[in-house]
Amino acid sequence: MRLPHIALDDLSDVEIGVCGVPWDGGTTNRPGARHGPRQMRDLSTMVRSVHHVSKLKPFELANCADLGDSPVNPIDIEDTLARVETYYKSIHDAGVVPLTAGGDHLITLPVMRAICDQGPVGMVHFDAHTDTWDRYFGGSKYTHGTPFRRAIEEGLLDPKRTVQIGIRGGLYGDFDNDWGLEQGIRVITIEEYFDLGIEAVIAEARRVVGDGKTYVSFDVDGLDPVYAPGTGTPEIGGFSTHDAQRMIRGLRGLDLVGGDVVEVSPPFDPSGNTALVGVTIMFEILCLLAECVAGRRG
Amino acid sequence: MRLPHIALDDLSDVEIGVCGVPWDGGTTNRPGARHGPRQMRDLSTMVRSVHHVSKLKPFELANCADLGDSPVNPIDIEDTLARVETYYKSIHDAGVVPLTAGGDHLITLPVMRAICDQGPVGMVHFDAHTDTWDRYFGGSKYTHGTPFRRAIEEGLLDPKRTVQIGIRGGLYGDFDNDWGLEQGIRVITIEEYFDLGIEAVIAEARRVVGDGKTYVSFDVDGLDPVYAPGTGTPEIGGFSTHDAQRMIRGLRGLDLVGGDVVEVSPPFDPSGNTALVGVTIMFEILCLLAECVAGRRG
Amino acid sequence: MRLPHIALDDLSDVEIGVCGVPWDGGTTNRPGARHGPRQMRDLSTMVRSVHHVSKLKPFELANCADLGDSPVNPIDIEDTLARVETYYKSIHDAGVVPLTAGGDHLITLPVMRAICDQGPVGMVHFDAHTDTWDRYFGGSKYTHGTPFRRAIEEGLLDPKRTVQIGIRGGLYGDFDNDWGLEQGIRVITIEEYFDLGIEAVIAEARRVVGDGKTYVSFDVDGLDPVYAPGTGTPEIGGFSTHDAQRMIRGLRGLDLVGGDVVEVSPPFDPSGNTALVGVTIMFEILCLLAECVAGRRG
Amino acid sequence: MRLPHIALDDLSDVEIGVCGVPWDGGTTNRPGARHGPRQMRDLSTMVRSVHHVSKLKPFELANCADLGDSPVNPIDIEDTLARVETYYKSIHDAGVVPLTAGGDHLITLPVMRAICDQGPVGMVHFDAHTDTWDRYFGGSKYTHGTPFRRAIEEGLLDPKRTVQIGIRGGLYGDFDNDWGLEQGIRVITIEEYFDLGIEAVIAEARRVVGDGKTYVSFDVDGLDPVYAPGTGTPEIGGFSTHDAQRMIRGLRGLDLVGGDVVEVSPPFDPSGNTALVGVTIMFEILCLLAECVAGRRG
Amino acid sequence: MRLPHIALDDLSDVEIGVCGVPWDGGTTNRPGARHGPRQMRDLSTMVRSVHHVSKLKPFELANCADLGDSPVNPIDIEDTLARVETYYKSIHDAGVVPLTAGGDHLITLPVMRAICDQGPVGMVHFDAHTDTWDRYFGGSKYTHGTPFRRAIEEGLLDPKRTVQIGIRGGLYGDFDNDWGLEQGIRVITIEEYFDLGIEAVIAEARRVVGDGKTYVSFDVDGLDPVYAPGTGTPEIGGFSTHDAQRMIRGLRGLDLVGGDVVEVSPPFDPSGNTALVGVTIMFEILCLLAECVAGRRG
Amino acid sequence: MRLPHIALDDLSDVEIGVCGVPWDGGTTNRPGARHGPRQMRDLSTMVRSVHHVSKLKPFELANCADLGDSPVNPIDIEDTLARVETYYKSIHDAGVVPLTAGGDHLITLPVMRAICDQGPVGMVHFDAHTDTWDRYFGGSKYTHGTPFRRAIEEGLLDPKRTVQIGIRGGLYGDFDNDWGLEQGIRVITIEEYFDLGIEAVIAEARRVVGDGKTYVSFDVDGLDPVYAPGTGTPEIGGFSTHDAQRMIRGLRGLDLVGGDVVEVSPPFDPSGNTALVGVTIMFEILCLLAECVAGRRG
Repeated sequence: MRLPHIALDDLSDVEIGVCGVPWDGGTTNRPGARHGPRQMRDLSTMVRSVHHVSKLKPFELANCADLGDSPVNPIDIEDTLARVETYYKSIHDAGVVPLTAGGDHLITLPVMRAICDQGPVGMVHFDAHTDTWDRYFGGSKYTHGTPFRRAIEEGLLDPKRTVQIGIRGGLYGDFDNDWGLEQGIRVITIEEYFDLGIEAVIAEARRVVGDGKTYVSFDVDGLDPVYAPGTGTPEIGGFSTHDAQRMIRGLRGLDLVGGDVVEVSPPFDPSGNTALVGVTIMFEILCLLAECVAGRRG
Repeated sequence: MRLPHIALDDLSDVEIGVCGVPWDGGTTNRPGARHGPRQMRDLSTMVRSVHHVSKLKPFELANCADLGDSPVNPIDIEDTLARVETYYKSIHDAGVVPLTAGGDHLITLPVMRAICDQGPVGMVHFDAHTDTWDRYFGGSKYTHGTPFRRAIEEGLLDPKRTVQIGIRGGLYGDFDNDWGLEQGIRVITIEEYFDLGIEAVIAEARRVVGDGKTYVSFDVDGLDPVYAPGTGTPEIGGFSTHDAQRMIRGLRGLDLVGGDVVEVSPPFDPSGNTALVGVTIMFEILCLLAECVAGRRG
Repeated sequence: MRLPHIALDDLSDVEIGVCGVPWDGGTTNRPGARHGPRQMRDLSTMVRSVHHVSKLKPFELANCADLGDSPVNPIDIEDTLARVETYYKSIHDAGVVPLTAGGDHLITLPVMRAICDQGPVGMVHFDAHTDTWDRYFGGSKYTHGTPFRRAIEEGLLDPKRTVQIGIRGGLYGDFDNDWGLEQGIRVITIEEYFDLGIEAVIAEARRVVGDGKTYVSFDVDGLDPVYAPGTGTPEIGGFSTHDAQRMIRGLRGLDLVGGDVVEVSPPFDPSGNTALVGVTIMFEILCLLAECVAGRRG
Repeated sequence: MRLPHIALDDLSDVEIGVCGVPWDGGTTNRPGARHGPRQMRDLSTMVRSVHHVSKLKPFELANCADLGDSPVNPIDIEDTLARVETYYKSIHDAGVVPLTAGGDHLITLPVMRAICDQGPVGMVHFDAHTDTWDRYFGGSKYTHGTPFRRAIEEGLLDPKRTVQIGIRGGLYGDFDNDWGLEQGIRVITIEEYFDLGIEAVIAEARRVVGDGKTYVSFDVDGLDPVYAPGTGTPEIGGFSTHDAQRMIRGLRGLDLVGGDVVEVSPPFDPSGNTALVGVTIMFEILCLLAECVAGRRG
Repeated sequence: MRLPHIALDDLSDVEIGVCGVPWDGGTTNRPGARHGPRQMRDLSTMVRSVHHVSKLKPFELANCADLGDSPVNPIDIEDTLARVETYYKSIHDAGVVPLTAGGDHLITLPVMRAICDQGPVGMVHFDAHTDTWDRYFGGSKYTHGTPFRRAIEEGLLDPKRTVQIGIRGGLYGDFDNDWGLEQGIRVITIEEYFDLGIEAVIAEARRVVGDGKTYVSFDVDGLDPVYAPGTGTPEIGGFSTHDAQRMIRGLRGLDLVGGDVVEVSPPFDPSGNTALVGVTIMFEILCLLAECVAGRRG
Repeated sequence: MRLPHIALDDLSDVEIGVCGVPWDGGTTNRPGARHGPRQMRDLSTMVRSVHHVSKLKPFELANCADLGDSPVNPIDIEDTLARVETYYKSIHDAGVVPLTAGGDHLITLPVMRAICDQGPVGMVHFDAHTDTWDRYFGGSKYTHGTPFRRAIEEGLLDPKRTVQIGIRGGLYGDFDNDWGLEQGIRVITIEEYFDLGIEAVIAEARRVVGDGKTYVSFDVDGLDPVYAPGTGTPEIGGFSTHDAQRMIRGLRGLDLVGGDVVEVSPPFDPSGNTALVGVTIMFEILCLLAECVAGRRG
């Protein structure tokens, strides 16, 4: 986004930090999301300075900087989780609100470990999958299908203030999504999404998360694959980019503590359109974060 | 779909057979559908076991098997028609309900010749084209534009119980679609489709085919080309995959005797999304077939 | 479109001329539109002779010919503007109505210089961008972001009879679109477009341009990028091809003096779908032009 | 090649006719060669007027014209063979030497039927395959693997004056190539090709065909697939384009009666490089044909 | 290769087993090799039955079967190493010689652990990289850059009977390759390869491995990237497929105990040519293995 | 290349500056080279620190920095020439040796205007084209086909110390290359290149440029298009990347004042291989420059 690149040892003036986590070690199907941050940076040259609907000017509202990529270990999940958490800890301790370009969805977990130090937060979660599975492959606790189960177990995420929008796709068993529902997550399947209509979906999301601190997590596979073919686990029949933009704009005024756009996998979309979508969604979230930051500053 | 692969000489326990017909010799514009079955098999690894809306479990409801590909002759239409018919005859005689991955749309004709041995069936036909033309190129009776004219002439298809959904595209003459209309086919153009809305389209389709035996034929070019670019005769301005899924789910409870998904042409979609769409649609049809088979079993 | 190719020195019988302008020298981001006319010609082999909704037969209504490509100078903007104007002047002087395949959007300016010799015309303009900026890069008056500012200044385009549909995307400053609004252009942003619904948009467009002479300019980036990824400045969240077709059909009966489809950039869409979309939109416009021409002939 | 396009009924001044045969109905593996002529025309805009090594100027040496595409029937082999033969007959009867862009390799057969009316000709045949098989698929006499067996049987091709260069790839049986060898064809496998070196290969080819009338047939799969990935039956380990150019230049002075470049299949090479290779090879052959024609004219 | 697919519990008649290891968890740069086995299977339909140079008929010489894919754990390296070793142990214990389609190069390590139970073997290793690094990323012992260091340390590989062909690419430090050289590995850099010529390289490889048991490991990045763009760590300036074929043929008569082709990564080569190359190389190795097996049988 | 990024106002410690010129306004055929610098930066993450043949360590030999991209004006050639010259003037005045990533070949002209302030330099020029044409399109002096004619006319380039390697491709007229030959340029066509062999070509290049100051300009279209498909004016039949590397290594010890790699056009190579080739060639040149800089430092 043509932002100044700032090193971690000089965060004193930064209010919002745009970070990448170039990692896909939690991916079970098609890898490649490790290249997501780079391609989103490339395509961010088309981002402009004024939001054409809200007229918000995020770069005037808040001091934004590109903090580069988090360190990762491409061949070790636990080590990566620790490295990413440490990186975000230093950002969070400096009072910076993070906006992250993934990476697969597992990376949201260490980000939350770093920033949710004052109790569980709510979440508006756009995705085709609930990502609340327990284990894969005979015991692996950490994959891109499990981050929010772990986050709830660890007290980082409040399931009763969590709404998941766009859920769909075949199931492996009857009970795949039951755990999350039992915890109190509000799941809006894509079928309910189309039945309700977008204004009702926005209202429901706002009702669920309420006034508390909230994180926005946007998995591009919530979109129909025609908008985001470059992703690891595409599921046909999702929402459109226009509707995604409307939904995020509908979250204006929430008390946001961070956000991410994940699962952009460039090798599966040579056209680059998925990354363009990803960076445009990041700009939508950035506008909301900037208004929050400006509001808190007083 | 991770199904057991079963040879034709041991069909005793099989109730639904998934078959490929790797052939595109009836294609007039862009060939490549011969590679459709293989790519759909590749992408079927993402199919799961429970339908996320209907909760149907097709692999529990019916004994399903992958029967491999039908023999074809890539350079001889009449020989191919005979080979495919013989192959499906042996399946049908064993009491197996076929679900087919094409191949171009002409392959539906020999399938019907094999299975419609008790009088004409009805059809729910998703397509951009009526495929009821008479002849091409100075007399060719068999192309992917003519199968349903032949099927009606041969008493395999009941035009009065046939509904075609999504028809569009320029015409070569005033009378291209008149023959079908005169036979009593109910043509729902894409314009009428959008005007009616999806619930009314489903109701109309159910009204047309009624309680009799019915075949479901899904040409991926009925979809907008953004969902299915890998096809031989794309026509812009079609329906979405989400709506296609809803329409097929809306056919639940019909008396189905078989189904197919045709015109997936991998060379024209390096991303593989068209094949992913194709196999997901096959899974939707499979759920309906499995419930039928279970119901007939009693 | 399988039209006869006619040389410029024998236009006596031609009423509508299909022309290409293979040029992208006004492009600020991703070049490639210079190859648009050729790929649209390639894909025009799928165009048929009767419009499937209106039943119009443009090739019977009017004498249509392919006039080839306009001369251009790939490395000199001013020289290109002069060459294109001269080329269209000779077409216009022969009484031929031009339908153009671009090329970037700047090429509409010299076309209008050639044909708007009897006062300013109205315009129905489909686009993600207003293209009414003033200058880029320290003074360049001529880019693909400025043609309609120049056209208004030169008295070729009547801003009060101009409607722009689909406008969106971030802004560089608060005032990017103010100039056009002050001149009286009716801007329908994509947000208003979705709120109004397509029938109301058509009605509003007809109200704005009224009965006077009108030009139709269709930038494929008005479409969502999934329908037209092969373009220079994609903006996510646009309208669909089906809706584009409906809107153009809704312009039937206007007094049209020409039309174009621009910004098709083949290098960014190896699938060719963007060019297929472009040529299908050209066919929709051609049907309208042919009916106008036939009506004027009396 | 920016040649004037000439209709068949006005061939009086034409000496060399460049023709396309957009057909792939004889293809057993990956179809798509039907689109070869069009893409080769597109890329021929880069052809220039003087050969940079021989300094030959083919368009000055002979009157060359683009005769368009032969009629074909995409779904009927025998009908296509008849149509192509008729088309070339009319060209040949007008005294025009044909240079053909295929299409699959079967199309060389009807061309030879049209032009070899004065006894069998010799051939320099570049290919990975001998194309002298007998039958496929239970009896089909006409596929892209059989044209030269048919041509020898029909007395069109003199096997003793035929040299095949680049032959390789696994065999279906011990005897695949024996028939051709028994007829007297000189087969230079790719292994022998690399062992001999290019100068010796050229000398051997000239020795085999001698002074009699000779046809040059260039199947792009003779090249290594990295140079020509867009083809139906790629075989790794072929010769390079540079060496192909040298070999054709080495045929200068032979008594040539025609030539072709076949098996360019655009869907399998989105980059277009295969077609660029094809058209450059056509230019090399054209230079030789033009010099022959000029020499005969005296 | 159209082989019969055999389950692991019925290996009694099998002599050579073709296996896949769909895993890329050891990849440090571009993932995707997990999809290699599937695409190589797809393209193996072009494999024929007789080697066109040696005339060997591997499917007659030995009883060959497709044993499917080894189990892996996409998100755990140590667990994957154990699963693959167990899988190959069962194959080896049944007396089957394995020919493996990778997967990244780390997978050779567990294969060797399973089959080298009678002391270290020699190796002909084609690659751009020595893969004898020690550790990456602060301690990871197992990556696709370390398998042969581990294999030497564990007594599976005899460095004095190991030859590496095609090594090139920039180094991270002076000593990257020193460890291997000190162990006695014969490294033939690509520069020495071109200087020696292919016959001398073959002779040297045969001299190094001698008469003892030998394994052939072929990393497709040893080839120039134009032949194998679909790979994780491409290095420009490699050998050609033709030369690779010649080198493998030159190993005829060695006492081979297994072989593999690794690092085919389909997402980075939409054309599929890399997989075609991979499967053709596998066929070359298969011919050698089959002759060995037949020889041992007596 | 993971270099520190340095702003122009702090060049005091820099000895070699890597710069991009994102511009293709001089391109006559296929644009896109403006995206070359960005993609080369992306792929430079694979560059390592020690040259594997010469063992040179450029980053230790000289203080290298990434100076970012030169300002350009995408729609004005003369303005761009001025901006690039000014940018390089400031670099040159600070005593920094530039290594440039293009951009089209015209950009070499303003670089030379900036750095050749002490009389004409010699040049080793790798290319398929001489780029010494005079004018295009009725008078344009500045295109990517003319930079070296201008450089000679302006006294920046000494034709008698200029060698061009790899020249080929059809000509527009007899005299295309005569002007350069008359000035004394040594043109080694690709035919002579293959006849001489690479060692003789290196010796000849060294003889021509001698001991004087010399610039290395590498147009990727000198390579065969299979190695560099992503370029504006591909010509089949070029040299290989391995040979290019050898030739550049053969220039070791010359008195080099700068270098560039130009005409990398990412839109025409979705695989990214062309950019990988480009950045690897840049590393080869960088090693030579670093040794020169270190030698001058004493």
